[in-house]
Formats: sequence, C-alpha cells, structure tokens
Amino acid sequence: MALRSYDQYIDSLKRMRPNIYKFDELIEDVTTHPATRYTVEGHSKSYRLYDDPKEKEVLTTTSHLTGEPISRYLSIIRSPEDMYANSRMKRRMFQLTGTCTGGRCVGWTSLNSIFAATYEMDEKLGTDYHRRFLNWLKDAQARDITIAGALTDPKGDRTKTPSMQEDPDLSLHIVERRDDGIVVRGAKVMICGVAAANEIFILPGSGYKEPDKDYAVSFVIPRDIGNLTIVETRRPSDMREYEEGFDTPVKEGGITQAYLFFEDVFIPRERVFMAGEYQFSLTAVLYFIAAYRAAIGGCVAGQGDVKIGAAVLTARANGLKSKVFSDKINQMHINNETTYGMGIAAAALGKKHPSGAWHCDMLLSNVNKIHVATLPYETSRLAQDIAGGIGETGCMPSYKDFTSSKYGNLIQKYMKARGSAESRARAARLVEWATIGAGVPGCMHGGGSPDGAKLVIRATANLEEKVEIARRLAGITEELPEP
Amino acid sequence: MALRSYDQYIDSLKRMRPNIYKFDELIEDVTTHPATRYTVEGHSKSYRLYDDPKEKEVLTTTSHLTGEPISRYLSIIRSPEDMYANSRMKRRMFQLTGTCTGGRCVGWTSLNSIFAATYEMDEKLGTDYHRRFLNWLKDAQARDITIAGALTDPKGDRTKTPSMQEDPDLSLHIVERRDDGIVVRGAKVMICGVAAANEIFILPGSGYKEPDKDYAVSFVIPRDIGNLTIVETRRPSDMREYEEGFDTPVKEGGITQAYLFFEDVFIPRERVFMAGEYQFSLTAVLYFIAAYRAAIGGCVAGQGDVKIGAAVLTARANGLKSKVFSDKINQMHINNETTYGMGIAAAALGKKHPSGAWHCDMLLSNVNKIHVATLPYETSRLAQDIAGGIGETGCMPSYKDFTSSKYGNLIQKYMKARGSAESRARAARLVEWATIGAGVPGCMHGGGSPDGAKLVIRATANLEEKVEIARRLAGITEELPEP
Amino acid sequence: MALRSYDQYIDSLKRMRPNIYKFDELIEDVTTHPATRYTVEGHSKSYRLYDDPKEKEVLTTTSHLTGEPISRYLSIIRSPEDMYANSRMKRRMFQLTGTCTGGRCVGWTSLNSIFAATYEMDEKLGTDYHRRFLNWLKDAQARDITIAGALTDPKGDRTKTPSMQEDPDLSLHIVERRDDGIVVRGAKVMICGVAAANEIFILPGSGYKEPDKDYAVSFVIPRDIGNLTIVETRRPSDMREYEEGFDTPVKEGGITQAYLFFEDVFIPRERVFMAGEYQFSLTAVLYFIAAYRAAIGGCVAGQGDVKIGAAVLTARANGLKSKVFSDKINQMHINNETTYGMGIAAAALGKKHPSGAWHCDMLLSNVNKIHVATLPYETSRLAQDIAGGIGETGCMPSYKDFTSSKYGNLIQKYMKARGSAESRARAARLVEWATIGAGVPGCMHGGGSPDGAKLVIRATANLEEKVEIARRLAGITEELPEP
Amino acid sequence: MALRSYDQYIDSLKRMRPNIYKFDELIEDVTTHPATRYTVEGHSKSYRLYDDPKEKEVLTTTSHLTGEPISRYLSIIRSPEDMYANSRMKRRMFQLTGTCTGGRCVGWTSLNSIFAATYEMDEKLGTDYHRRFLNWLKDAQARDITIAGALTDPKGDRTKTPSMQEDPDLSLHIVERRDDGIVVRGAKVMICGVAAANEIFILPGSGYKEPDKDYAVSFVIPRDIGNLTIVETRRPSDMREYEEGFDTPVKEGGITQAYLFFEDVFIPRERVFMAGEYQFSLTAVLYFIAAYRAAIGGCVAGQGDVKIGAAVLTARANGLKSKVFSDKINQMHINNETTYGMGIAAAALGKKHPSGAWHCDMLLSNVNKIHVATLPYETSRLAQDIAGGIGETGCMPSYKDFTSSKYGNLIQKYMKARGSAESRARAARLVEWATIGAGVPGCMHGGGSPDGAKLVIRATANLEEKVEIARRLAGITEELPEP
Repeated sequence: MALRSYDQYIDSLKRMRPNIYKFDELIEDVTTHPATRYTVEGHSKSYRLYDDPKEKEVLTTTSHLTGEPISRYLSIIRSPEDMYANSRMKRRMFQLTGTCTGGRCVGWTSLNSIFAATYEMDEKLGTDYHRRFLNWLKDAQARDITIAGALTDPKGDRTKTPSMQEDPDLSLHIVERRDDGIVVRGAKVMICGVAAANEIFILPGSGYKEPDKDYAVSFVIPRDIGNLTIVETRRPSDMREYEEGFDTPVKEGGITQAYLFFEDVFIPRERVFMAGEYQFSLTAVLYFIAAYRAAIGGCVAGQGDVKIGAAVLTARANGLKSKVFSDKINQMHINNETTYGMGIAAAALGKKHPSGAWHCDMLLSNVNKIHVATLPYETSRLAQDIAGGIGETGCMPSYKDFTSSKYGNLIQKYMKARGSAESRARAARLVEWATIGAGVPGCMHGGGSPDGAKLVIRATANLEEKVEIARRLAGITEELPEP
Repeated sequence: MALRSYDQYIDSLKRMRPNIYKFDELIEDVTTHPATRYTVEGHSKSYRLYDDPKEKEVLTTTSHLTGEPISRYLSIIRSPEDMYANSRMKRRMFQLTGTCTGGRCVGWTSLNSIFAATYEMDEKLGTDYHRRFLNWLKDAQARDITIAGALTDPKGDRTKTPSMQEDPDLSLHIVERRDDGIVVRGAKVMICGVAAANEIFILPGSGYKEPDKDYAVSFVIPRDIGNLTIVETRRPSDMREYEEGFDTPVKEGGITQAYLFFEDVFIPRERVFMAGEYQFSLTAVLYFIAAYRAAIGGCVAGQGDVKIGAAVLTARANGLKSKVFSDKINQMHINNETTYGMGIAAAALGKKHPSGAWHCDMLLSNVNKIHVATLPYETSRLAQDIAGGIGETGCMPSYKDFTSSKYGNLIQKYMKARGSAESRARAARLVEWATIGAGVPGCMHGGGSPDGAKLVIRATANLEEKVEIARRLAGITEELPEP
Repeated sequence: MALRSYDQYIDSLKRMRPNIYKFDELIEDVTTHPATRYTVEGHSKSYRLYDDPKEKEVLTTTSHLTGEPISRYLSIIRSPEDMYANSRMKRRMFQLTGTCTGGRCVGWTSLNSIFAATYEMDEKLGTDYHRRFLNWLKDAQARDITIAGALTDPKGDRTKTPSMQEDPDLSLHIVERRDDGIVVRGAKVMICGVAAANEIFILPGSGYKEPDKDYAVSFVIPRDIGNLTIVETRRPSDMREYEEGFDTPVKEGGITQAYLFFEDVFIPRERVFMAGEYQFSLTAVLYFIAAYRAAIGGCVAGQGDVKIGAAVLTARANGLKSKVFSDKINQMHINNETTYGMGIAAAALGKKHPSGAWHCDMLLSNVNKIHVATLPYETSRLAQDIAGGIGETGCMPSYKDFTSSKYGNLIQKYMKARGSAESRARAARLVEWATIGAGVPGCMHGGGSPDGAKLVIRATANLEEKVEIARRLAGITEELPEP
Repeated sequence: MALRSYDQYIDSLKRMRPNIYKFDELIEDVTTHPATRYTVEGHSKSYRLYDDPKEKEVLTTTSHLTGEPISRYLSIIRSPEDMYANSRMKRRMFQLTGTCTGGRCVGWTSLNSIFAATYEMDEKLGTDYHRRFLNWLKDAQARDITIAGALTDPKGDRTKTPSMQEDPDLSLHIVERRDDGIVVRGAKVMICGVAAANEIFILPGSGYKEPDKDYAVSFVIPRDIGNLTIVETRRPSDMREYEEGFDTPVKEGGITQAYLFFEDVFIPRERVFMAGEYQFSLTAVLYFIAAYRAAIGGCVAGQGDVKIGAAVLTARANGLKSKVFSDKINQMHINNETTYGMGIAAAALGKKHPSGAWHCDMLLSNVNKIHVATLPYETSRLAQDIAGGIGETGCMPSYKDFTSSKYGNLIQKYMKARGSAESRARAARLVEWATIGAGVPGCMHGGGSPDGAKLVIRATANLEEKVEIARRLAGITEELPEP
C-alpha cells in the first residue's frame, strides 16, 4: 500500500483521537470541521492527484530503501534532481491549493535532516539511531502517511538559554529517561498542517550546549498521542471559513498553524532519534534549514503565480488589458523566478553527505531565505496595485450582502464591469486572500527568521577571502587585519 | 455651538434614520453595533479631545467666515501652515486611534475642493454655487458636524466613459433636474467613515467631457437621506470585531468602507454645488487630489508610528533590545518621515487660489502618492520582521482559547517571555492588526490609484525643460525633437 | 560694489598668490588652467547671471544687515522662504553648470552656522565672536566674494579622538594663541571649489570634548594666505579636461576637491570665530548639517534633471521616443522631487533661532541625507539604462579618434543614427559624465556620511513616544522598558 | 599544443599585423602599449594559470571532439556541470584580474551558439555549416587561441530595420557572395577584449526577416585580417593607464571595448557559418543570450567580491571593523550570490539540444539579466558607503602628487590612518576603480539590454497559465479573456 487513496487518507484522519481545539471547542472531525477542512482538502491533493499521470510524476518517486513507488514527501533527497523535484512539487502544490502543504513538507524536511544526523551520530557515538530511523521510515513509506514537522519552541526570554529560563518547560525537553523510551514536556508552536497529519516529526528548536542537553531531542509521534493537546491559532480573516460563499474564495487548500502542548508525553524508544546528544542538535537544525530555505523558494513562487493570475483576472474583469500592467507583471515574474531559481541553485551546488543524502549549499540557501522574506511583499503590493481598490483590502460587501434579498441586486448591478459581478468579486477576493487574507502563509519567519539567515550568510560567505583578493589586486603589501 | 461635545456627537448619530447594513442586517445604532462602533469611537476623538488643550490646538482653528473657533475638519485651508496643520492632525489622529478618520478628512478635502471650484464656476459661468456653498459651510461649522466624502463611482468597464456603459448608472448621475433641486441615481463605492458621519459630501468621480455632463455633479446630503441605502464592506478579520477580547487589539478606532446606493435621491437646490458643469469636473477632482495626496503622507506616517511602536513592544516582550533592530527601525522612521515630509513640501510650494484657498503643488503631491502606495508596505514588512512569527500573521491562539478553562493556562504558560503572556499577545496582535488585519487602510487606491498619480507626474514634471538643459550643457546645436 | 561683475570676479582670482597644485605642478592662473578653469567657469555663473533678471531673482536677496542687494550666497537664512530659495538656487545652478557650486554653497552654509553659534557663545560665554563675525560678513557682502567652506579633517584612526592620535595634526588645531590671533596646524581634506574661491571658511570637523579643545576652531582666511598649500585631487576621467573636444562634454562647470595643508598658519583675531570653546563645536557642526543636508536635495535634484535630459536626448538621437521609457523617466522624476521636496519640508518645519537664523528640522534634514546617498544611484542607473551601451560607460572612440584624418569618417558614418553622429556622441558623453565621469559629485559623503545621518535620525525620531502610542492602543498596562 | 604557454600567447599577439588604434595612434604592440597591455595581461592569466593545478581545474576541460585537454574557453558546453564551470571560471577570472575576460568569454559563447545553430541549419536546410564549424573548432582547440566575439551592430535609427536605413552599412552585411567565400561591410561596436584576441567570432546582431537576409551572417576571422580597422573606445579614467603609479590600482587586468570597421573584408568559405539563412539569425542570438545572461551572473559576482574586499580594506585602513558595516556587507554578499546563483539555476534547469549542447533555461537566464543590470549598482553604492569619501569618487591627490618632492610628505602625513598612507590610497583607489573608474564593465547593456531581457521574460513566463490557476482557485466559471 505504498500509495494511499484519497479515501484512505481521509479515513485515517477520521479514525484519530480528537485532540485539536480552536475557539475553545474540540474539533471532532478535522476533515469536516470548518477550522480544518480546507487544510485537509489541500493536503489531500497529494493523494488525490496520484490518478493524474502528469501530477503523479511530480508527487511520487522510488524509495531508495525498497524500490517501491512512494510519495515524494516520504523520500530521502539523494541528488540535485531530487531537490529540484522538491522545489517543483512545492510550487505545483501551491498552484493547485493556493497555499502551502506545510503538514507534509516540514515533516519531510525534518526526516531528511534526521536521516543524515542519525547517520553521523551512529558513526561518531556508536548509537543506533539511524537504524531505528530507517525502520520507521520504511514503515512510514509503506503506510504513505502525512507527517507534520515541528521545530519552534516557545523559547521565553530570547536572551536566555532554555535551562536558564525561569520556567524550564519553555523549550521542549526530556523530563524522564526510561528503558523503553523518554518522557517529554514543553511545547512546539506555530506548527503547520498538524490537523492534516497522521504523525508529527519533532526536531530540536536550536543548537544546544551541554547544560541544555535535555533539550536536544528528536522523535516522531502519532498526532493523537496521549497527553498531547493541540490548539489551532487564529489567522487573518479565519472566521470567514465558518461562513458560506466566496468570501473565502479558495476551498481547495488552507493554512493551519498549531500550538502543541506536551504534558509529559511518553515516546517509545524506537521512535526516538536524538535524546541528549546536544553536539548534534545544531547539525540537525542546519541540515533542516539548508533544504528548507532552498525549497521554500518554490512555495513562494507558486504563491506568486497565484497572485499574478488573481491580479490579472481582476484587471480583466475591470475591462483592462494586462499590457497596461506589463512592467508590474514582469516584476512579479522576476520575483517568483528569483526565489524559485535560487532554491534550484542551492540544490545544484550542494554536495553529497556520507549517508547518501544530498545537502544544499548553505550560503545560497540562506541568501534565498532573505529573498523569501522580502520579494513576496513586493509581489503582493503589485497584485494590489493591479487589482485596484476592491483587491487592495477586499473592499466589497460580504457574500451575505451580495446575495441579500433586500439589496443584493444593487450590489450585483454596481459590481458588474466587463466581467460579471460574481467573477469580479471572486477574482478580487482571491487577491485579498493571497495578499492580506487567510491565504498569506508565514513565510518570513517560517523555517527561521531572516536575521538567522543573515548570521549563516555571514558565517559562510568568506569575507576574508574577498579581502585577500582585493589586497592582491590593489598591490597592498601591508597586513591589514580586522582592527 | 461651534464645537460639539462627545455626547452631542454621539447623540446626533443615534438620532439618524438607520440606513446602513452589514451581513444582511440593518444596523439600528451605529454607536453600539459591533460593525461600526469602533469607527464611531475613532471619529469621536475629534470631539472628545477638545477638552485637552494640547490636542485642541491640533484639532481646531478659527473660521475665516465667522471668526469663531471651529473644528479644523470644517475649515478652509488658506495657507501653507493650514496644510501643515492638516498633515499634523492626520498623523496625530492616526496615533490616537490607530487608523484613519476617513469620515472627517475626505469630506473636509471635498469641501475645500468645491470651495475653489465653485468660486471659479461663479466667476466664469455666473452661477451662484459659491454663495450656496458658503451658506452651507457656515451652517456646517456652526453645527460642528462630521462629513464623509465620496468620489469613487463603480465605473463598470474601465475602457468606456459613463454614458457609453451598457448600464448608465455605473457612475452617479443626474436623472432629473427640477426647479427645487436634482434627482440622482447610481452609487459611490468604498467610502470611508460613513457610519460615523452626519453628512456626506459628493464630488464627481472623474473629469468629464460634454457627453457625460450629467455625471458632473456635486452636492452634500444628510447620511440618512431618503432612498439612500448603505452597505458596509468586509475588511480583513472584521468578524473579530463581533468578539470579545483583544484579538482586535484596538478599540479606539476602526475603519469602515461603504457602498452607497442612490435610488433616485432628491437633492435640494441649496445643497447642489455642481450640476452639469462638466468643464469643472476635472478641476474639482484635481483640487481634491492635490490636497489629499499631500496630507495622506501624514496619515501613513501616523500608521507607521504605530507599526514601529507595536513591533518594538513585541520585541521587548520577547526580551530583545530595540538596538538589535536599529537599522530596521531607522528605515521605518525614514519611510514615515518621507511621506510626512513630502506632504509638507507639497504644501510649502503650493500657491494661493483667487478664492483664498491654498493649493498644494501638484507634482510633489503626486510624487507623494507614489511613496504612500509603496513605503508602508516596506514598513509593514519590517514590523513583521522585528515582531517575529507571532506578529507576522498573528500566529497565536484566539482570545477564547487564551482564556479557555480547559487549556488557557497552557497557552499563558508558554506565551510568557520577558513580558507577560497577555502583553506579548496584545503587542503582537497590534502588529498583525496594523499590517495584515482590520487596521490596514486602503491607502494605495484611496484618493486614486498610483497609476493615476504617475499620469499627473508625467504631465507636470516638464520633461522638455530637462531635455533643453541637457542639450545646452552638451553643446548640441541640432534640434532633437521627440521622434 | 555689493554685486560684482564677472570680470571683477575673474580678476580677483587672477590677482591671488598661486598656492594650488595638481599633478605636481603649480597652477599659476586658476581661471585658465585646465585643472581649474571649468570650476571657475561654473562658479562665475553666480556673477555672470546677475544680468538676467529671472536668474538674478534666484541668485540675490537683500542683506538684513545693510538692506543692500547681495548675493544669496552671502546672506543669512532667516525664514523658510530663504531656505526654499537656497534649494531652488542650488537646483538651478546645477542645471546651468551641470554640477555643484561647492565653492560658494559650503562657505555659505558655514557662515550661517557660525552666525547662530557665535550668537550663542556670546550669550553664554560673554565672548565677542558674533560681533567680529558680523563685521566680517558685512565686508564680505560688500566685496561679493566667493567663499569655500571646510570641515572635514583627515582624522587618522577613526577609533581615536584627535588628541589621542599618534600624530596630533591629523585634525586641524591651534598650536599657538597670541594676543593678535592664533596659529593653526593640520589639514582639511576633500574641500570643494577652493580654486574658485576668494576665501575659505573653516569649521571644526566634529563635536569635541574638553581634552580636544584646541580642535574646536573656526575662522575665515583668504585662499592664498601664507603657509597654506593646496593640492587638488584626482577625479574620474579628469585628464580629459586637459584635452580638446567633447569627451568632457560640459565646459560651463566642473568639480574640484582639494586637500588643504596648514603649516602653522597665522589667523588674525578679527577672523577667528571659535578658539577652544569645545562646548560649541558640536553646535556649529549640527547647525551646518541641518541646513546642508536639507538643501543638498536641491543639488541632487538638479543633477537628476541633467541625467533625465541627457538620457532622453541620447534615446532620441537613437531614434527612440521617450514614451518607451516612461516608467523609468517617471522614477527619475520621483527621485529628483523626493530629495528636493524633503529639503523643502525640512525648511518648512524648521524653527527660528534667537539670533534670527532659520534652522531646518534636524530629523527631516537627515532623512533627506539618506535619500541623497541612495536615490541618485538609481537615477544614474536608469539614465544608463535609457541611453544604451554608449551611455553606460561612454563606450565610444575618443574625440581625437572621432576627428581622425585616418578613420574619423568611419566613426562618424557608423555613429550616426536619427541624430547626427556628433549629437549622439555629445548626448551619450553627457550621460557618462553625469553618471560615471567627472560630473559625479561626492554627494554620499559630502556634508557627512549616511551613517552619521542615521545616528541623528535615531537621536531625533523619538522611538519611545511611538512605543507609548502602541502600548496605549494595544491596551497594555504592564511596563515594558528596553531590556 | 592544446594548451599554450603564456609566452606562446604573448608571442602570438606580437606577431599580428597592427590594426588597432586609440587616440588617433596605431598600436604597434598590444602587449606593451599602455592602452591595451592590461587587458592582455588579464587575458593572459587564462594561460599563465595552467601551471597552478587548482586554477587549471577551473580553466581547462576535455575536448569532446578529440579527448584532449583544452581551454574551457574553447569547449562545447554539454551539461549543466559545464555551465556551472563556466560561471565559476568567470567569477574566478574576475577575482584574479579585477575585471572581465571578455575577449575569451564572448567568443566562447558565440561559438557555442553557432555549434547548435549550424547543427539545426544542416538538419533543416541541408547545408554543411556544422562540419565547417567543427573543423575550425578542432583547429582552434589545438591552437589554444583567444577568440573575441562580436554581435552588436551600430544599427542607426532604432525604429528601422537594417535594409530600411538610409545607410545600409549600419549593420554588418554581405555585399558580395563568391564561390570561395563572402565579402562583408559594416561595423561591430563595443566589442570586448579584441586587443587580446587572436581571432574574432561574428554573430548576427539580431533576428532578421527575409528582406534583411544579407545581415544574417556569421563567421570567424583573424583579428588582423585585411580591411579590418579597429578603434578602441575611451573608458572612464582611461588616461591613467598611460601614467605611472597606483592611480590605476590594478595591473593584472583591464577592459577594452572596440569599434570594428569592415571595409569589404573577404571571408573564406570554410570560415563562414551563416550567410543569408535569416530564419536562423534569431536562433543564433537566442542561443547566445541563454548562456551569456546566465553566466554573466558569475562575472558580476566576481566583481562584487572585489568591491566587498576593497571596501572592507579601506575601512580597515581607516581603523574601522567590518562589523560596523555588517548589514551592508551582507547585502553585498546577497547581491553577488543572487546573480551567481540565478545563473547556476538557469543552467540546472536547462535542456539538452539535439546537437549535444546544453542550453540554459531562457526564463531564468533573462531574469538574471535584470539582476545583473540592477544589483551591481547597489553593490557599488554600498562599497562607496563603506569606504568613505576617499573611495566614493577617489577623492585623493594623484600618485604624482603623493610622491611629489615638494609636498608629497604632507599628503602622506595626512593620509595615514590605521593603515599606511599608501595602503589606504591603494585600497580606496580600488574602490574607485571598481565602482566609478576604469574597472567598471558595461554589464547592463553587454549581452543585450535589460529591456530586451524583459521581452524574453514576457514571452516565456506563461502568463495565461497563471491566470488559469487563479481562475480555477477562485471558482470562476466565466471566460475572462484578455480584453
């Protein structure tokens, strides 16, 4: 059963213990509840589209462990081409769902990080994490499960390490080590797509030193494991998802971001991949971000594709040719292809890890993170510019008003332009949704902040080499070290 | 009664005929209904603060018609200093209410435009619009009323003029001329602050030629005039305003933008200031935008001030010094002072109109419009950058969850950093609100689109003069006219 | 003789002692030597144009000391309108000469700074500097002299104060105090327009504390004073000024920047305006930069006007309409009007000093400095973009080749497009000159570095006020001071 | 002799017929004449460094025709890795020579373009161009020659095609067809590195239609072929190359850009690769730009590396830590890696041509062209910002003055800071040279203008696909074609 059907996926979610809340309400069925159904629908596309040969090529690959066809989201990235396929799949999923499929991609990136990190741990420390991990992975591939990924801890006061905080739980940590596993306490926050996931892959939230070794912990759990409470966060305009009509224009995808509270959760030994090996906590994080910050360029490009299309549709509904906006559209293309291309470049210049994993170039990957934190804002602005006032903040009456028996006819009369009133409204709502609504993903800080990326750039860009190049060219013989 | 009290203002709104709808529901009392109370509260500050001598100096001036103290929002702008005071008041009101006071400022700009335009009409056409207008204005000053302003027509297909549209009503027009007044039909859309207004000042939506002369119409009406139906539009996250708690963090101000449907509304003669004089329709629009696009730099600066404060507060609640972000904060200051300063400059280099009005420099005013359509997006991005993930898209559980009896304690435990959980949440919600929530005003297209401003820049920047300067400097004797 | 003629000005320069060198050669006559004649020609326009009533209005004003008509460059700025006139004159002079008239404007700004600073010194310290200064100024106005200004010291190691340097001369300082005056040693570097000046006004290069009090020194000297040696610096493509033809396309203006070496120069008492009053050294610098960083926006706008004209001329010579480049031209206009406008705004929001001087707003003035250090680079890039390859780096054969008897005909045959070969070459050379040639002024660091401006912005932008605004709006009751 | 020695290369240049002029003077020996020696020195590095194993790996590859080791500059690019090596070599050569090695790289790109284009011509038209070309290429590889490339025609009036011009020679064309070859007349302009080249590869300057078929011409010639006259253009500050000392700080590389005049030059049949096949003229141009606009990102990155190093060196000589400028340096890194990375991405996503060539992705390649035309200007500005006034426009006395017996001691006394006066001057001169001096290459228009790149982006970015994505997401059923 290496490739599940849509029905199997939905059924697997329905069978889980309800442990997700929003608005102080327990969500009994994530596949039908307004707060979660759109994200489930979006993630489900990664199963549903197996039936479309063209999309299947994007979505699947062959397991290097078993030789079976598997979801690409469960594969180990072993070549630049695997990484290109990662970027391409993310861009495509964004185009199809209007948003990110975070509940698959973060888990995927996490397991790839741990694949290499456990290999190193076993090599250097004599542990058997890599074997455990491969066992789990083979099984996960066979089950074709959706796996969310979780790194970010609440962290508390940013100027103190986890163990120095007044409350030691502000980063997730081991509170008990048993022969058959570990017990963890704490939280992971702002975690995407948990509601659509079967399991959750946990990585340490940062690199740690010895005093914080209990925070160096990685494992994978069923989403509905005991003592785990999940609360979905608000997002812009999220109440519209409880309404009828097209004020939420996209139904084929949606974002959720959750807070996960671990109240002494027991993790069985075979699902633990790091438990105190603090020396490898930074390793795991770096392997994660190298891939993540490259491929996110594909996500952002896919989102930009939607913005371009939505803006041009609105303009056409207004009666305007896209030629009028050609410079703006061009800039949007440039922005999209820049984040996409830089991710490809980071992959192309990556290198092979002894474990067989393909690791992206850290410098290019982190440069891309900066673009990802910047260019989409310009793309959004340009979309709003093209779409006009009704796109800028979605400045139109609600669907309830649009269909009002009292005055809906007036709204429809006056919203008609070249396109029908409904087409115009839908197109403009899509601009709103993608630029200032529920469709805006948290790309700037997702996968780490731009300031973090700048630190990596500084560390990897080799300033002294450039200083030497200049010194030689200028014929300076004096040593001029950093003052 | 040249300066009303807060109670008088509220009372005046309560006494009006309910004719505003949202979500297919009639709003009986705009001062208490969740959809409108915050905008009323924001506008009310312009009355409430008369009691504070420092704010009163900002908010009031002396009528040049009567010598009485009046609200600045009802004054005629007659000097550069009056315009500086305009910019300063707008910035201040934004700081105090977190958002724009559109229901006063657009009306104010409209009446200033018509002040000069009616003067010219009377001079050139022998009409008596200016006298009518002054009569109304004196009365309006004495009553200290709040006046919204309305220019934007639905317009329909953008490639056709109003009379060429299939539906002639897609811009507001005169359908009947009577001895005692006119009857108008059509709509004005995306109109700010109507719910907080006593009256609405109507300007033509564009410059018209002879065939569209029935669209050249200006008048002022009570908001609750017969046959006028008003529907409030959605805004990002507007349903939160129906909830308790701090998910809408600002209660002292709020935006509304309405669609106004005129189903054969009768306007008495004394309140009509243009009725077919198409030659002056562009004049009225230009006089409006010269002032509007200058002073909006103050609004945007005030909003930027809030973004700076909110971002730094969040960072401090996270335990981080503002010094860490000093380059970003500096850029935010620069953006704010640029839009503010350019508005001041447009005023400083303006000129006196024969009517006594002070008109801003068109070139600088429209250059500012471009900054207003651009810089706040960067300021928002920087605010989200500084504030981190919880600010970027407000990625936190709802107030309902925050106070949940089941797990609210967990949320509060884990949201605590250097500041309390509540302070952190409130600060981050303010960042969300101001950058991707209900606090985002429609500044890019409000007062006309940036593309419109670019046309004005092109028309006023005198390219040929610069070409001649260069030709002379380069010693080119050949004529090189435009090919 | 309050307004000198061109001949009188030229004559005054010819009569000075030669003490300026370039390329190891003493310049006997600055008015004819290739290294200096263009800058003299540019500065001379400020005399020559007295004959043109329209330009005279720009260039002159009335002395508030004597009521006589005087050069604006010798006036005290006492109102916002005086500052606007400053910006306007600078923009105009740039348009007429293609470059900056630094030898008048820096001196002018310096004397205005010292006007207010001496007033304060006399008030607080009981000195009589202000009287001395006014005596000199009246005389200077009557003689209508050109006065360069000098602030920048060599400074040596930037991490040490002047008196801590190994070599105490690395900033200009007093080495002897005598009853009849002072003796100074050191240097001032990168000083504009000295070759065209009659006198040089010296300000302290920075704000000093007590141990550096000998560096707190201000005075004015004849350019050819004894023991002063001046060396002109290289500028891009400066050797072309020694050649014939249009490779240096502009003959009506030119830049010079000099190093001034003071080898124990004696300054008579009546020309000394600060001599150890270190508490006022920062004052003098700040008064200088407030005006300078505002008005430089006019210079940069004038330069931008030339770039627009030169680029469009080249395009026309190529056969292309400016419409093809309308977005780029518009952006150039926007950049020009932004620096110009921000300077106007700084003036408009300035305030009256007790001495009667009008002081620009420090925040807006320093925000403008950032724009001045940024926007012209974009304007240059756009000019090169429009002008094509021959404009980008002036990629054309030299004038010598253009007129070669061997193959000049080939060059002229192939350079002809819609315009003549010569017109095309001249237009493209002007683009080169203004964007990457001898016409590029040192605006980024002239008048202080952008990093210095950022410090002023930080100091004046009142971050805590904005934090309080946000705290109140968000309803945060907790104190959240800077960590 | 597949890899020549430095001496062999220099000797080959010395043995050529002198036909290059500058300043109306015939250059007898390009290897020693001040106008050309630096570019020869730069190009010679591609031979000289064969002795360094590490550099040799960058500079050489294996001929797919002969299996011999050859210069990479003479290889056919047959894989993404070949293209990465192209970008890497260009970046490295820029680091080593401070500038571009245009006389090798344009020829290389040209021959790669013609490799694929002749393959197609032979396939479709039955010509034997590909065979001819391979013969020549094998020989060229064996001789290890340096080959400049030339595309740009003078073009005349840009609104007319070549045959519609008043002067038909304004683009290079065939004036006679003979059995043994063709005779061509016209010019190619702004051609890099000709003085360092043994041969010149000619491509058509544009895509042509049938009436312009005589302009569809490609061939390769010895640089000193009969009837070819070459005139070197001026570049910024080029006269300094005739002087002693460090005012031109870089001696290991230099730029030349020449005008080539063809006065009825005869090209033997075996060296002609296109002669009238207008249908393939655009093909040849597109194959050129796909590779060129990708790899130029490497050049620009290498130049940026020099700017970073030069700026930081100057700052260190001033006594300042690079940490002070870390944000600026980071932005420079980001700019460099963006152009470099986008070129890599264009290669990675390229595809195999039937001829065996690897062709870069057109969309990404042209997006990169926009970055190449934009980002280096920001990098230059930042370098000038960091370096201070002496770097901004090289505001220092000349080398002649620096070493003056009269006052050189003063200059050296006062230019000393933390570094020696000479180090400071050299470092600042390098900033000047790289940002506003002779080291600035014509990257914006070299390889075609940004506006041309925008046309390609528009043609390849598939707007309608994005519109369909949005239409489906928004649930719009109505057709909304372009108005």
